[in-house]
Amino acid sequence: MKRGLFITLEGPDGSGKSTQIGYLKEYFAEKGMECVFTREPGGTDIGEKLRSIILDKDNNEMSDMTEALLYAASRAQHVSQLIGPALDAGKTVVCDRFVDSSIAYQGYGRRLGDCVRVINGYAVMGCMPDVTFLIEVDPKIGKARIDTQDQDRLESEKMRFHNCVYKGYRKMAENEPDRIIPIDGTASREDMRREIAGHLDRLFADRDK
Amino acid sequence: MKRGLFITLEGPDGSGKSTQIGYLKEYFAEKGMECVFTREPGGTDIGEKLRSIILDKDNNEMSDMTEALLYAASRAQHVSQLIGPALDAGKTVVCDRFVDSSIAYQGYGRRLGDCVRVINGYAVMGCMPDVTFLIEVDPKIGKARIDTQDQDRLESEKMRFHNCVYKGYRKMAENEPDRIIPIDGTASREDMRREIAGHLDRLFADRDK
Repeated sequence: MKRGLFITLEGPDGSGKSTQIGYLKEYFAEKGMECVFTREPGGTDIGEKLRSIILDKDNNEMSDMTEALLYAASRAQHVSQLIGPALDAGKTVVCDRFVDSSIAYQGYGRRLGDCVRVINGYAVMGCMPDVTFLIEVDPKIGKARIDTQDQDRLESEKMRFHNCVYKGYRKMAENEPDRIIPIDGTASREDMRREIAGHLDRLFADRDK
Repeated sequence: MKRGLFITLEGPDGSGKSTQIGYLKEYFAEKGMECVFTREPGGTDIGEKLRSIILDKDNNEMSDMTEALLYAASRAQHVSQLIGPALDAGKTVVCDRFVDSSIAYQGYGRRLGDCVRVINGYAVMGCMPDVTFLIEVDPKIGKARIDTQDQDRLESEKMRFHNCVYKGYRKMAENEPDRIIPIDGTASREDMRREIAGHLDRLFADRDK
């Protein structure tokens, strides 16, 4: 049996990722293709337990390296228990965030550097996405929405962080143009839907040749 | 302030590690030296939460890689929140199991290989033990205690695993003779106590020169 296609969606929160995932559900339903939708962090029972530890505000002493390793642990479980078996069974898998989120947020945003890529390379054990749609929204656009009176140290720090994440995502897209497809996040949701569907149509046509 | 000495104890369960840790508490109390005693997995609130996930029998679907990454995450938190600050404050730290346990049990025992060493190298961020006492007990000695009638597939598998762990520990001791001090686990607890105390006496004398 032919291994399924592994698709991931990446981009900052508020980029319209969830809307596009809704459209992807329609896309696969219309084609009558079985598709597994999942998300990170989470996706498995163990992953959900780790998600609650990662996102628990009581754990504010968590170091950046601990956080990065927990995301990787959750991902290793996700791959071995859900994503890998689904792909092996010939199913398409769509995952909301994956390895690239860790590299962008922990590697670039938290400045942990290249170790995040190395650790996640072990975690996924060769199971990398076939195609990644990266919804790009310049953080400056988000910045314009913030009341200037609230621009305290924390907000500036947040902006620095989001700028680093954005630059990281762009650099990764440059380095892997065959896998990572940038999608203009300032376009209308309908335009984005059409662009993503067009890419998928071509991908499936190439696979059926 | 001079950085504190970081001491770890390694060896299989049942090797008498806990007894020796009790003796170490007496050793430092007698010398009037402040010493922090801690253990892995655990040692911090976040680490204890991860410990309960790792050891929870309901999580029997946990992959070997997930387990290895969770131990590393717990360790990263332990180093950044407890061990690192204590050493920086000049305190001696004694830790029951550390990096070497992961390399022996996950790297050798579960055959994940060298990635366990690489991942843990990132996790500890340079905070490696100054000295490690490795209590060696040949698994064959343990094997002799098992009723031969119970030698089913699982028991044989367990023996294979414990043999790999033992070989891993021995190889690590060969590779790092300056750090890892093998202690004969078949000796009496009193002999082991004297041997460890003798090593520590020399170490502290060298540091005070």
